[in-house]
Amino acid sequence: MLQLPNELLLLISHLKKLPGVGSKTAERFAFEFLSWPKEDLTALGETLKTIQEKISPCPTCGCLTTETHACYFCNNSQRDTTQLCILSSPRDAYAIEGTRSYKGLYHVIDHLLSPLDGRHPATLRLDKIEERIVKCSIQEIIIALDSTLEGDATALYLKNELTKLNVKVSRLAFGLPLGSSLEYIDSGTLTRSLVGRQIF
Amino acid sequence: MLQLPNELLLLISHLKKLPGVGSKTAERFAFEFLSWPKEDLTALGETLKTIQEKISPCPTCGCLTTETHACYFCNNSQRDTTQLCILSSPRDAYAIEGTRSYKGLYHVIDHLLSPLDGRHPATLRLDKIEERIVKCSIQEIIIALDSTLEGDATALYLKNELTKLNVKVSRLAFGLPLGSSLEYIDSGTLTRSLVGRQIF
Repeated sequence: MLQLPNELLLLISHLKKLPGVGSKTAERFAFEFLSWPKEDLTALGETLKTIQEKISPCPTCGCLTTETHACYFCNNSQRDTTQLCILSSPRDAYAIEGTRSYKGLYHVIDHLLSPLDGRHPATLRLDKIEERIVKCSIQEIIIALDSTLEGDATALYLKNELTKLNVKVSRLAFGLPLGSSLEYIDSGTLTRSLVGRQIF
Repeated sequence: MLQLPNELLLLISHLKKLPGVGSKTAERFAFEFLSWPKEDLTALGETLKTIQEKISPCPTCGCLTTETHACYFCNNSQRDTTQLCILSSPRDAYAIEGTRSYKGLYHVIDHLLSPLDGRHPATLRLDKIEERIVKCSIQEIIIALDSTLEGDATALYLKNELTKLNVKVSRLAFGLPLGSSLEYIDSGTLTRSLVGRQIF
């Protein structure tokens, strides 16, 4: 059977590493790139090669810093330094900021626990969180991790470790998403929203 | 509201040009790139910058040629030069080759007709197809275009123009995909498979 050119197979193998991108989608992207204007492709290639030099994680909280802007959160006297929100990606900080409902600090952990993938508690760098709790006199830790198996395991581990430090530990509420119909809600979510029901 | 860094917004604007990639997916890809190992990102950037030099369309049929390999179809004495299959992307040639059911030549048109997007019949370069019909003594043209509004319009236009040249023009059959259940088939497909029914 006719094989794709090696150069294209190489490009596809790179693109397949993106989340949610399988062989078919990577192939589609690769052929799309072949038809892009040359200058667009050069610009994207150059952007990819330099993006990590231009944007790097804040050494304190793990949120994004650029060459021209230091960390928006760590260098901001308006933030409430008694609250620390734990995230698994700097991206989530933008989602939470979008709610305009939180004014505290953030702490991005490198990864969620997943022992099978070699992501153990030891590499969570809990010492960095402890250091910040002491330094900023944090009173409440808000765990804002994904509601997945890895997210739940990591949240539980963090709760167990952090409550030892005499600090309040909370986690984002589970329940019905706004605008949802009960008939379409899975039973797990419904159970959590029943258990977590609030006085109205 | 907190904005993403400009460098990241630039990367996202590039990625959004990919088919099926909206703002959310482009953002997800961009953050994913930030966490890639530096050497992987450099390799992808370099691949993108050079891919169009390494792979280019065959000037005759529009299929892919590389620096080391001339066109697989145009330089192959084993191909049946009486059949010409019209495609809208070089990618489709690989799909058809995968069936091992076609041994003729290919011709990739630059685009499907879409007047609203400025893609008119004049830019289809019908003269190139006519030239090949004469040069290779083509007897049958097989139109293998997408079953979309643009694909149908282009197929109809090609049929009208090419039948004038005293050549048989066919199009891929429409009907039930293999392994399908009638109850899940849309009525349009079912209509086409009824109209196109074959003696069994």
